Amino acid sequence: MDREKIGFYVDIVMIILAIFTVFLLFYEMTIAPADVTPADISAGNIPEEVRAVLPKIVLIHKLDLWICIVFIVEFLVRIVKEPDRKAFFKAYWLEIPGMIPFTLPFLNISKTFRVFRLFRLVRLFSMMKRLSRLYQKRFVRNELQYTALIVIMILLFSAYGIFFFERQVNPDINSAGDALWWSIVTVTTVGYGDKVPITPLGKVLGVILMVTGIGVIGVLSGTIASRLLRGYRTEREAGDVQEALRILKLRRAKGEVTEEQYHEIKKDLEEMQGETG
Amino acid sequence: MDREKIGFYVDIVMIILAIFTVFLLFYEMTIAPADVTPADISAGNIPEEVRAVLPKIVLIHKLDLWICIVFIVEFLVRIVKEPDRKAFFKAYWLEIPGMIPFTLPFLNISKTFRVFRLFRLVRLFSMMKRLSRLYQKRFVRNELQYTALIVIMILLFSAYGIFFFERQVNPDINSAGDALWWSIVTVTTVGYGDKVPITPLGKVLGVILMVTGIGVIGVLSGTIASRLLRGYRTEREAGDVQEALRILKLRRAKGEVTEEQYHEIKKDLEEMQGETG
Amino acid sequence: MDREKIGFYVDIVMIILAIFTVFLLFYEMTIAPADVTPADISAGNIPEEVRAVLPKIVLIHKLDLWICIVFIVEFLVRIVKEPDRKAFFKAYWLEIPGMIPFTLPFLNISKTFRVFRLFRLVRLFSMMKRLSRLYQKRFVRNELQYTALIVIMILLFSAYGIFFFERQVNPDINSAGDALWWSIVTVTTVGYGDKVPITPLGKVLGVILMVTGIGVIGVLSGTIASRLLRGYRTEREAGDVQEALRILKLRRAKGEVTEEQYHEIKKDLEEMQGETG
Amino acid sequence: MDREKIGFYVDIVMIILAIFTVFLLFYEMTIAPADVTPADISAGNIPEEVRAVLPKIVLIHKLDLWICIVFIVEFLVRIVKEPDRKAFFKAYWLEIPGMIPFTLPFLNISKTFRVFRLFRLVRLFSMMKRLSRLYQKRFVRNELQYTALIVIMILLFSAYGIFFFERQVNPDINSAGDALWWSIVTVTTVGYGDKVPITPLGKVLGVILMVTGIGVIGVLSGTIASRLLRGYRTEREAGDVQEALRILKLRRAKGEVTEEQYHEIKKDLEEMQGETG
Repeated sequence: MDREKIGFYVDIVMIILAIFTVFLLFYEMTIAPADVTPADISAGNIPEEVRAVLPKIVLIHKLDLWICIVFIVEFLVRIVKEPDRKAFFKAYWLEIPGMIPFTLPFLNISKTFRVFRLFRLVRLFSMMKRLSRLYQKRFVRNELQYTALIVIMILLFSAYGIFFFERQVNPDINSAGDALWWSIVTVTTVGYGDKVPITPLGKVLGVILMVTGIGVIGVLSGTIASRLLRGYRTEREAGDVQEALRILKLRRAKGEVTEEQYHEIKKDLEEMQGETG
Repeated sequence: MDREKIGFYVDIVMIILAIFTVFLLFYEMTIAPADVTPADISAGNIPEEVRAVLPKIVLIHKLDLWICIVFIVEFLVRIVKEPDRKAFFKAYWLEIPGMIPFTLPFLNISKTFRVFRLFRLVRLFSMMKRLSRLYQKRFVRNELQYTALIVIMILLFSAYGIFFFERQVNPDINSAGDALWWSIVTVTTVGYGDKVPITPLGKVLGVILMVTGIGVIGVLSGTIASRLLRGYRTEREAGDVQEALRILKLRRAKGEVTEEQYHEIKKDLEEMQGETG
Repeated sequence: MDREKIGFYVDIVMIILAIFTVFLLFYEMTIAPADVTPADISAGNIPEEVRAVLPKIVLIHKLDLWICIVFIVEFLVRIVKEPDRKAFFKAYWLEIPGMIPFTLPFLNISKTFRVFRLFRLVRLFSMMKRLSRLYQKRFVRNELQYTALIVIMILLFSAYGIFFFERQVNPDINSAGDALWWSIVTVTTVGYGDKVPITPLGKVLGVILMVTGIGVIGVLSGTIASRLLRGYRTEREAGDVQEALRILKLRRAKGEVTEEQYHEIKKDLEEMQGETG
Repeated sequence: MDREKIGFYVDIVMIILAIFTVFLLFYEMTIAPADVTPADISAGNIPEEVRAVLPKIVLIHKLDLWICIVFIVEFLVRIVKEPDRKAFFKAYWLEIPGMIPFTLPFLNISKTFRVFRLFRLVRLFSMMKRLSRLYQKRFVRNELQYTALIVIMILLFSAYGIFFFERQVNPDINSAGDALWWSIVTVTTVGYGDKVPITPLGKVLGVILMVTGIGVIGVLSGTIASRLLRGYRTEREAGDVQEALRILKLRRAKGEVTEEQYHEIKKDLEEMQGETG
């Protein structure tokens, strides 16, 4: 097996792990109504509502720890191999906070510090970017897909964040689904008001979502609209070409174009018709 | 009567049937608070709230069965006559699920399966497309009409869907009118929040509506706005032409244009004025 | 006093009457919780809640009757004087329903029929159009003002309509102010949901408002935004001209432009700078 | 120290004072549930809820008085030094109402009159404009920053206003944070409806916010979106240049361009590639 192929399969594995780690992120929060750290567990300081799902959470933490080790190793290997390390750091440094495991066995990570988990979503994004760059954009072929990808990232980011900040406080946001629904309703500016952040950090996140997301979703829905309306436009454009041909012939008659120009332009128009017809 | 005329009248009949079947779709749901199948009826398993309207529902099912048969026959005839069957299938395969009758006498169709009824709206759309294509766009003449048509389709689709998913669960969505109002309030991003989907499938539908509809309605309201503002713009454009003529005369005086160019450009400007004035 | 001047003062008087009649429209609804007609009054069939304000309402009806007579007379005079009556009718026929008085002494106008009062707003609009056309756009000078005028018309129209349909039914819409607030919150797509139409006709009006208004208000807020940002853009454009001049000088040095072209282009650029600087 | 440097440090001090005075504005309202003037204090007419924070408020008023004096002095110095006083007044007259102190020791300023405090935000804006103009746009370098600045001004203005009008009336708007959240939710047209103005003046402010802000925030989010999507676009543009080069070479082969033209265009394309690559 040659080098390039190995790189390809490594990338595939890494992206699957990145998606899996985002899944774990949401899953842990879904089953555990309150956060718990290994230090809490060893101290026997376990909230009542978490006790039932404790074995699952311990398993999730173990899985996550191993995945993080894989990411760290892969990152180090990439650094070693990279000729231009400065450019590499500039492009990928945001991945680093995403490599911190959910909990460290010897460390009691405070709740605030856990917001760093959000950076796993950043890693997911930089990973897809890498993939699409290396393999001649086999992955993301056009602007629609690229925009959709950024929208999905923004939505996952804000859904995770709002779930994180509001879960135990806001009676309207109880599940990952609620959080995602809020993100979509907000970013499209529909804003029903059925779910509204009530914590200061949740509101800050809402503002970030509005400022960054509204424009991007505007581009996305604009692109989708132009696709839906393309059927008609194609026909109209074909009509435009017909019209131009008619005028060209009149101009030839009036001697406004030379014979050479006439044939050149006519060829161009016929080519355009071939594309849209 | 020649062939083309027969085709025209067949198309007219088919489109009326297509609209009628969509009407039936909403009407059945409006009168029946719960779904009922022929198998249920023969088994005597009729929900209390449906009993009063049972004769109507049975009639609707019979009507629908016959209309579906008409559609299937017409579809088969078109296939037989079509020279390029592959292209035909590619263009019209989405009509097929819309040909499944509401209920089959020998089959107990589950509730989930009934979502296929939504495809009747798809058929409605493909039918209008067919009409407008065959008769030199006599039906849909400009982009405004085409966009409005797509908006109506999206709205009917989502209104039916939300009515289907939320009718028995959501106290705010009780009628086809409620469902349509929700769709319009959502797709324009007004989002009052007086009606909000509460079921997971209703929310998924809401997301589909937002992602596909917001851009299209943006195009529609933009087109309507430009029509409303056209009065002023036309006048301004007429003014622009006047201004250009003035400058052209100055340029002629300065010798910046040859006499030939002057007369050609002047003619062009006068033609433009004729269009807008 | 010459003819043109008389025409000018007549127009001024008519526009004041048109605005006054719209004011009466809102005022009558504000003071009278229920509608009452002369026939009701002569029959002694007066709703309890109206009795207190009955003298005011009778006065409003009398005032309105006289204003309507003025409008009808003025309309007839214009028709008589107009050379191209067909074009005149095409442009102004929508004014006619606005000339029906609030109540006719010998006629018991039903509630539904009163919706025709909305056409007074249409007249207001056509009157402004007339003014701006006749007096070389002295009244509406630029697109911003024209768009703002249309927005105000749409808002008055929908505010009146929603007030008319929802006043006695919807506890959230009690005054002309409430109705206008609802219109603005809806047309900007903010859609708080603090006031939502609950009657079918109110909802239809809401849909009309959304479809026609959202695009126009988009143009309006876009124009206002570009004004607010013009300060910066003007400076940037001045910079653009400087940059173009620099490049032009380089091109002259390289002999890419002839001396003649150089001086012509330079003059153009300097003129552009004079406009923005 | 030369003159220009002194001017620079004076500007820095003034801008810090302007920001500080806006901070005081919000802080006073946050701690004092009701307004109180020196005349009230000397008359012993102090609302119960204010008594506890009275020393702080007196301190704020003193601080504000001194800052206002600094602004007035600085303004007078600028007028004296300015050669074109008319242009100066036209540009900066809106600063003047912002120089009225919160309270004057000898004057009992009514509540309505205090709305003038809003003009401190205007001053903040004109100050930043001044800074960015004088120092070759060192402060505001591009349109994104300029648009963001205007958005922040609009938000601070409406947040202060809504806080001012609704604080004691609206149970949903209790803090500067609430007011800012309402402003952002409104200006982005999300409009959850969790906070809605209920006073007439609050509603007027809401309308002003919608009309002026929605377009500007549209420009802002559009600019941010285009930045987020630039990565992809840059790559695509690089591809466009490659494509154009390929076609150019074919055209050269076909003799459609002269050798001179070919080299000129090729150079242009290579320069464009240098910018985006």
